[in-house]
Amino acid sequence: MKIFIINGPNLNMLGKREPEIYGADTLESINAELKELCDSIGVEPEFYQSNCEGELIDIIHSAREKADGIVLNAGAYTHYSIAIRDAISACEKPCVEVHLSNVHKREEFRHKSVISAVCEGVICGFGKDSYRLAILALAGK
Amino acid sequence: MKIFIINGPNLNMLGKREPEIYGADTLESINAELKELCDSIGVEPEFYQSNCEGELIDIIHSAREKADGIVLNAGAYTHYSIAIRDAISACEKPCVEVHLSNVHKREEFRHKSVISAVCEGVICGFGKDSYRLAILALAGK
Amino acid sequence: MKIFIINGPNLNMLGKREPEIYGADTLESINAELKELCDSIGVEPEFYQSNCEGELIDIIHSAREKADGIVLNAGAYTHYSIAIRDAISACEKPCVEVHLSNVHKREEFRHKSVISAVCEGVICGFGKDSYRLAILALAGK
Amino acid sequence: MKIFIINGPNLNMLGKREPEIYGADTLESINAELKELCDSIGVEPEFYQSNCEGELIDIIHSAREKADGIVLNAGAYTHYSIAIRDAISACEKPCVEVHLSNVHKREEFRHKSVISAVCEGVICGFGKDSYRLAILALAGK
Amino acid sequence: MKIFIINGPNLNMLGKREPEIYGADTLESINAELKELCDSIGVEPEFYQSNCEGELIDIIHSAREKADGIVLNAGAYTHYSIAIRDAISACEKPCVEVHLSNVHKREEFRHKSVISAVCEGVICGFGKDSYRLAILALAGK
Amino acid sequence: MKIFIINGPNLNMLGKREPEIYGADTLESINAELKELCDSIGVEPEFYQSNCEGELIDIIHSAREKADGIVLNAGAYTHYSIAIRDAISACEKPCVEVHLSNVHKREEFRHKSVISAVCEGVICGFGKDSYRLAILALAGK
Amino acid sequence: MKIFIINGPNLNMLGKREPEIYGADTLESINAELKELCDSIGVEPEFYQSNCEGELIDIIHSAREKADGIVLNAGAYTHYSIAIRDAISACEKPCVEVHLSNVHKREEFRHKSVISAVCEGVICGFGKDSYRLAILALAGK
Amino acid sequence: MKIFIINGPNLNMLGKREPEIYGADTLESINAELKELCDSIGVEPEFYQSNCEGELIDIIHSAREKADGIVLNAGAYTHYSIAIRDAISACEKPCVEVHLSNVHKREEFRHKSVISAVCEGVICGFGKDSYRLAILALAGK
Amino acid sequence: MKIFIINGPNLNMLGKREPEIYGADTLESINAELKELCDSIGVEPEFYQSNCEGELIDIIHSAREKADGIVLNAGAYTHYSIAIRDAISACEKPCVEVHLSNVHKREEFRHKSVISAVCEGVICGFGKDSYRLAILALAGK
Amino acid sequence: MKIFIINGPNLNMLGKREPEIYGADTLESINAELKELCDSIGVEPEFYQSNCEGELIDIIHSAREKADGIVLNAGAYTHYSIAIRDAISACEKPCVEVHLSNVHKREEFRHKSVISAVCEGVICGFGKDSYRLAILALAGK
Amino acid sequence: MKIFIINGPNLNMLGKREPEIYGADTLESINAELKELCDSIGVEPEFYQSNCEGELIDIIHSAREKADGIVLNAGAYTHYSIAIRDAISACEKPCVEVHLSNVHKREEFRHKSVISAVCEGVICGFGKDSYRLAILALAGK
Amino acid sequence: MKIFIINGPNLNMLGKREPEIYGADTLESINAELKELCDSIGVEPEFYQSNCEGELIDIIHSAREKADGIVLNAGAYTHYSIAIRDAISACEKPCVEVHLSNVHKREEFRHKSVISAVCEGVICGFGKDSYRLAILALAGK
Repeated sequence: MKIFIINGPNLNMLGKREPEIYGADTLESINAELKELCDSIGVEPEFYQSNCEGELIDIIHSAREKADGIVLNAGAYTHYSIAIRDAISACEKPCVEVHLSNVHKREEFRHKSVISAVCEGVICGFGKDSYRLAILALAGK
Repeated sequence: MKIFIINGPNLNMLGKREPEIYGADTLESINAELKELCDSIGVEPEFYQSNCEGELIDIIHSAREKADGIVLNAGAYTHYSIAIRDAISACEKPCVEVHLSNVHKREEFRHKSVISAVCEGVICGFGKDSYRLAILALAGK
Repeated sequence: MKIFIINGPNLNMLGKREPEIYGADTLESINAELKELCDSIGVEPEFYQSNCEGELIDIIHSAREKADGIVLNAGAYTHYSIAIRDAISACEKPCVEVHLSNVHKREEFRHKSVISAVCEGVICGFGKDSYRLAILALAGK
Repeated sequence: MKIFIINGPNLNMLGKREPEIYGADTLESINAELKELCDSIGVEPEFYQSNCEGELIDIIHSAREKADGIVLNAGAYTHYSIAIRDAISACEKPCVEVHLSNVHKREEFRHKSVISAVCEGVICGFGKDSYRLAILALAGK
Repeated sequence: MKIFIINGPNLNMLGKREPEIYGADTLESINAELKELCDSIGVEPEFYQSNCEGELIDIIHSAREKADGIVLNAGAYTHYSIAIRDAISACEKPCVEVHLSNVHKREEFRHKSVISAVCEGVICGFGKDSYRLAILALAGK
Repeated sequence: MKIFIINGPNLNMLGKREPEIYGADTLESINAELKELCDSIGVEPEFYQSNCEGELIDIIHSAREKADGIVLNAGAYTHYSIAIRDAISACEKPCVEVHLSNVHKREEFRHKSVISAVCEGVICGFGKDSYRLAILALAGK
Repeated sequence: MKIFIINGPNLNMLGKREPEIYGADTLESINAELKELCDSIGVEPEFYQSNCEGELIDIIHSAREKADGIVLNAGAYTHYSIAIRDAISACEKPCVEVHLSNVHKREEFRHKSVISAVCEGVICGFGKDSYRLAILALAGK
Repeated sequence: MKIFIINGPNLNMLGKREPEIYGADTLESINAELKELCDSIGVEPEFYQSNCEGELIDIIHSAREKADGIVLNAGAYTHYSIAIRDAISACEKPCVEVHLSNVHKREEFRHKSVISAVCEGVICGFGKDSYRLAILALAGK
Repeated sequence: MKIFIINGPNLNMLGKREPEIYGADTLESINAELKELCDSIGVEPEFYQSNCEGELIDIIHSAREKADGIVLNAGAYTHYSIAIRDAISACEKPCVEVHLSNVHKREEFRHKSVISAVCEGVICGFGKDSYRLAILALAGK
Repeated sequence: MKIFIINGPNLNMLGKREPEIYGADTLESINAELKELCDSIGVEPEFYQSNCEGELIDIIHSAREKADGIVLNAGAYTHYSIAIRDAISACEKPCVEVHLSNVHKREEFRHKSVISAVCEGVICGFGKDSYRLAILALAGK
Repeated sequence: MKIFIINGPNLNMLGKREPEIYGADTLESINAELKELCDSIGVEPEFYQSNCEGELIDIIHSAREKADGIVLNAGAYTHYSIAIRDAISACEKPCVEVHLSNVHKREEFRHKSVISAVCEGVICGFGKDSYRLAILALAGK
Repeated sequence: MKIFIINGPNLNMLGKREPEIYGADTLESINAELKELCDSIGVEPEFYQSNCEGELIDIIHSAREKADGIVLNAGAYTHYSIAIRDAISACEKPCVEVHLSNVHKREEFRHKSVISAVCEGVICGFGKDSYRLAILALAGK
């Protein structure tokens, strides 16, 4: 089983940006941990990050042929990118929406997700464990 | 580690009510599976279900002294019970909000949760696995 | 044919509470009249009243096995109890929403019903005759 | 006792238009059935249908002198014709608002009625029986 | 100078309909008084009333060739008839919007006029004197 | 009969301020014309202008004892001064709201008046003639 | 193939009304041009215009038996006539919504169409060519 | 004079729950202080607390026969329980709405009360003194 | 202890203005009663009234140096004067918002206070006793 | 005459993505058909597709020098990309907005276009024929 | 070149009021610094402060004859004083809106300015430097 | 001191695009002028422009290590790019939001900025001088 683990805008800044919200781990160290988890349960992960909406769409499209599922932290695009929403629909693979922080504890505009309705499910608020749980959820299918 | 697994209104109807949305398992069989999972990871679960907002508040209050965490599927109360929200705050134990279905794929009024902001995190859309993931999330802390 | 006739919060105060809106009959006398009507058309009624949202949900659940239809005056819960709405869906028996007064002539917040969309139909504004018409509607099926 | 039974726009298409929503009966056959009901309870009905807002207003005005009550299915005008609302007020005869379908199960814009507040009561969702119940409601006064 | 004095839906019921709001005069007697006023100031009035939106549009169109100004009480159409608004624009003659009652003292939905923005001015709240003032306003130009 | 003719903020700038909207006449010249009109119909006018909300309230209060009616152009206070609204209620004399321009042709925020509901009537859009018509309206009572 | 080309309120004023928005052609000359186009592609057109909502509904109903498609410029009714929307649904023939002007460049209230959702498609902004394109669209089916 | 002092959901947690908002006193100690105050001014208090909406309604109903007034801290039900609102109306005894904290300094959703409009008055923000002032207000009547 | 008792716009009309809402006492007689209460509990009151927003701000500023607390009935300014709100913040003395009437029973626009969030607490609905309770609340600190 | 035919995000998935909405043709085959149409009417087309908002802006900018018109299917960017809107304005060439599906039949958020107001016109709902009609519309100028 | 530097309500409290938001400088010391800046660039400043909306309007009016530009910190009036907006329009001199704090970081209601649209530009968030930049902006014209 | 001067979408069109709004200077000539200003006050500027949201995020990220402050004209992204907002937060360098035009004089949707709340301050409406003032503001720190 192959899973794309895709991170959107500003997540390359993890470990630097507002650690009280996002934690002190960098994206690289989180991905390394997730790689270990995947190995232990027989899942083959592929990791992507981009700040560009168009590139994220391209990556999601490529999952159509190359992956069995997607773990997606779309960052701020979560709240307005209908284009990414449409890419998820077009991809026709199960996608799990994740967030590090509990977005419902933050600003009002972060409570609205335009992609939830086309995802399998949503996991938010568990820091880097949000990704772990999402991988387990996809693998458990 | 002790966890309260609390189910709110209409969840006693699981397995009977709209199986295309909620699945064919009864609450009893789901709880039995969760009991097994808990045993395997050294967690002591306690199971509750009530259709009554006031009883749910009483149970959450009692978790303050008796539990280390809560897994809560508040059912329809999720969308308007500020009283349950306040009970979670008053309880001061980590609480994970779960839903069987992806509420964001359903009616508009089910997109709004008044309790998310006082929970650790939210997991929705994975059927009975939503509970499993929530237990893992609490246990992983 | 068996019909549950269920009254929600404050309807035990009929005859005392604001008679210019709700009329001078008590719930007991109304139920007695409805019993007569039911007898005359071969319908077996069962009468319930509760001020508690949770109890109303329990009663509606029990209709699933025990009744062929429901006449429901959910009182103020009409306007916000999504839990009762879900109970009606779970019950899978035809339910008629009734109101004594024409709620559209009253305060703005009484114009909105969260249960109408899961009921067969709605009858409001005819005083105690609202119940009579609802019974006839169910019996005519 | 004389009752005007008035149907508004598109109701002349009954039996042809979307039978899964409105049923297979034509307006003529429904009116024939209602005529029978009226005969049996000593009510004298008069039947009208128009697609024109202005004509419907004229008919409602004429009820002021000629009728003891009105059963009105205003069709789509229900949702915006304040002019028909004012005609009902000016007529000063009891008027019952009816709908074939349960409008609350349909598009959002059909949930709002501008005429309910000047009617005696509302009956919706019982197909052609909505008219029957409305006649009984008026006759029972 | 020629002026069209046009009354919309339900104004044929003046004197009968809710006299506490609209006064006891009939439209005929008001028009007779206005005729006298017009004679005294050298204005030639023409009087119209219709309950039909389409007829009102036709009348307003005809004012383009035949009148120097319009006094329009559009009744309830005031609040939603964008078609009448467009007719006033197309007519290209000064039009004064009048109302017998002070609409701002009444229901919220009567506070909104869709035609004010294409009229010269608005006069409301002075009973039948609203028409008198409107004629003076047009004549004074 | 004594009438207070009260002008609110910025109306002292008439003749200077945006003449394409408000005309070329100064407030002094308009008041002189209105004085003539009043003399001709036996009305005794008193003229006030203030840019200060509190002073306008004081003037309206004094009308309670000293005047039989008020012509009020409250300028921009029209749109938000609930305090002036309350002063009109407290004054208990008929008050006519006037505006030089047709406020409904201008910015959205000028369409809303918080004082209309406590005035006898409203006249807007006729330039300085708005005042003339308001005086006639009051005098005609 | 037979097509009804239906024009709603105020479109009889084309060529007179605001030519900077609607162009200098009259409805007659536009219809003549469209007739030519239809002849050249083997389509049989029938032309209607009415300012009356009820008549437009009647015409659309008649298209059910007599036409293969409709080109409809509903004018201002576009924005609020749910009755015309229902007539289009009841007619069950493909209908193309057209507008001469690009309604999205005009007032906010013209951006909303209540009929688009029951039409095949929408064409606006090309002046009289909007009709031409609509005929081609229907003929190309 | 007899007064019911009724506390709603989560107020049994006083002294434990978020003391920086609600203070360090328990409900028992507050009630003891209020008992003293009542004794000193000749008022007979009766104390209730429940987390259940239905039980609170029952208690308020019983005040109809047994009390001369109510001091009600409805907790979170304040913001949505129209059923409690109706119970207060049905009870027909003066009721004072109290809150420990100044709800207007807290989350937006706590600014709205559905019960204020059926209460005598509102007192909020004075900690346990809110109850004292409410008792004085009722006793002073 | 020194307390400023400040009354805003139109409260100089007490006893004259709408006595069914505000009572028959004049501001002078109420202030005299409050003076007595203050004397009896060792509080030194200072009384102010102004219809002018700017003067009220000046008075509140002066309380910074000269008073220990404020009782403020800001009248209609309650609903929109953010400037008074800022003055209360700048003053840094405890301020109690009072209203004679229960504003929540009146027009919708009176339900909103822009100053509550910077006051200690709010007391409304007890007529002149609202001021008494507010003095007790401040003195009890 | 040269025309840019520009497709936005996810339109490279045509033929794969949800064929029941978008049809079975690929973008390549559609473009081939459009090329033929263009050849037959003497128009020189240039085809672009990008998932990236910034690249689409660059392409639209280049149309300023290189093209006489634009046919633009901006996909999901239609609903929020004010940047693309500004690019169209900056380009100063006529642009026709097209959509394959009738967006008004789909989710509410697809009814809103931020680019319509800067386009010549809009054509939607005719599948690949939407492009054909748009080319004809531009060519007919 | 002459510039009016006008400060609105509560700005006389600078240095006292919430120094963490507004800084520790008094208005006097800020004005002294600005005087120096003006001297150095050949600008003649005149300084005003008032808490009264009406006085601010008078000052702005006087700028029409006496000044070449205005620097205006309207304080809380920024958010609702349409009267001050109209005074700026009537003054017909360039006016720069300034704020000490970045109002967009504060409460929602401070994000809305009713005067921005009639000012040359807006400068906010730079403490007392906001005034310096505004003077430079005006002088640079 | 090093400052990044970043321009977003469509600003490469300056001098070509709508010069009546944006002026006749090209971005190159403006940057040249700003370079001179920077030289004269000892600031080292670096200039960027991109139409791509993702590239702008990358540039802002790089400012974290390489710059002491940012002058940002985010163009249309100002109104919806929460991703750019998050990049500014993550960068943790002072950022000044600038606009050439006074956005508050333009379309409603340009009044809303999603980035203001994470910037030091905002300067808009002074044409190219907006950049000059922003550089001075940052340098003055």
